[in-house]
Amino acid sequence: MERLKQQLQFLLELDKQKEIGRQTYLADGSRKEGDAEHAWHMAIMAFLLADYANEKIDVLKTIKMILMHDVVEIDAGDTYAYDTEGNKTKKLREEKAADRIYGMLPEDQRNECRALWEEFEAMETPEAKFANTLDKVQPMLLNDASKGKSWREHGIKKEQVLNRNARTKEGSETLWEYVRQLIEENVKKGNIAE
Amino acid sequence: MERLKQQLQFLLELDKQKEIGRQTYLADGSRKEGDAEHAWHMAIMAFLLADYANEKIDVLKTIKMILMHDVVEIDAGDTYAYDTEGNKTKKLREEKAADRIYGMLPEDQRNECRALWEEFEAMETPEAKFANTLDKVQPMLLNDASKGKSWREHGIKKEQVLNRNARTKEGSETLWEYVRQLIEENVKKGNIAE
Repeated sequence: MERLKQQLQFLLELDKQKEIGRQTYLADGSRKEGDAEHAWHMAIMAFLLADYANEKIDVLKTIKMILMHDVVEIDAGDTYAYDTEGNKTKKLREEKAADRIYGMLPEDQRNECRALWEEFEAMETPEAKFANTLDKVQPMLLNDASKGKSWREHGIKKEQVLNRNARTKEGSETLWEYVRQLIEENVKKGNIAE
Repeated sequence: MERLKQQLQFLLELDKQKEIGRQTYLADGSRKEGDAEHAWHMAIMAFLLADYANEKIDVLKTIKMILMHDVVEIDAGDTYAYDTEGNKTKKLREEKAADRIYGMLPEDQRNECRALWEEFEAMETPEAKFANTLDKVQPMLLNDASKGKSWREHGIKKEQVLNRNARTKEGSETLWEYVRQLIEENVKKGNIAE
């Protein structure tokens, strides 16, 4: 029973992720989405779009990685992609959060979950590359659907979007080709600044 | 490109699920949770708690089933567990929704996703039984953490909770034993009516 209690404590702690807001609006522009919703959306993308990964991926591993890739934001908060200052301290804040949060789990699962998060961050394996690609593609689809609402609010420039997506093609050439066109269209529409 | 476009259309349609509210409050009682958040939480439970399933489960299949188990609510809405009238028309409303929504996918994925949803609903396979158990256990954990906020608001009685959970043990005797105790504790506290 001790093992189960530790797991349920951890699962209740994760509930806090539902309240961590992101900068991306829902497709209909009505409100911004939360971390848990973003991860849920990405997880479904992972299995529906797995065939577009450049290298063959283990779908279960990719989904596990995705479901918990933002868990550290419970303590460290969401650092907006284009927040230069915040991104300087991000790594340290997130490492500390990982120690505390994954530390709640029984040892075997603590190690597994922590390793999956580190693998995601390192972006070297096929699964981590594809998960990172989806992490960029998912908000792009929503930004496009919401007529660039978040890009416009932050006055985001094409160069920033391209820099942010410098490695998107590593996970999937096909998805990168799609979003590359989508970026161009949004520049034309004025949703992304030249 | 046609296949990818169909898939992305479907994925954008799923975005609407983030706006479908449930009756369960977040653990801290601050607001009710949405469908996507509920599915995300259950999916993590599926892999962390898989060892408690009565029969060995295919974790990937279980997670796929969970991630999309409420997709039909985009058209049919969330039918509250204790809404007797709504539950009479639920099946028909949800079948129609499944035709439309899964119909957006390329044929192979349409068939796979539809079959997973029907399997979940039929509650016969080990995966479907365990997923259904988590579907009951997850809101129970949140209800307990939020001091029975949703139970109290609806004046829910012990008998209703037990009826609702008549099959929870089929997915996991261990989790059922845990929530059975949790129900008793909440009756004692007055969060669930005698």
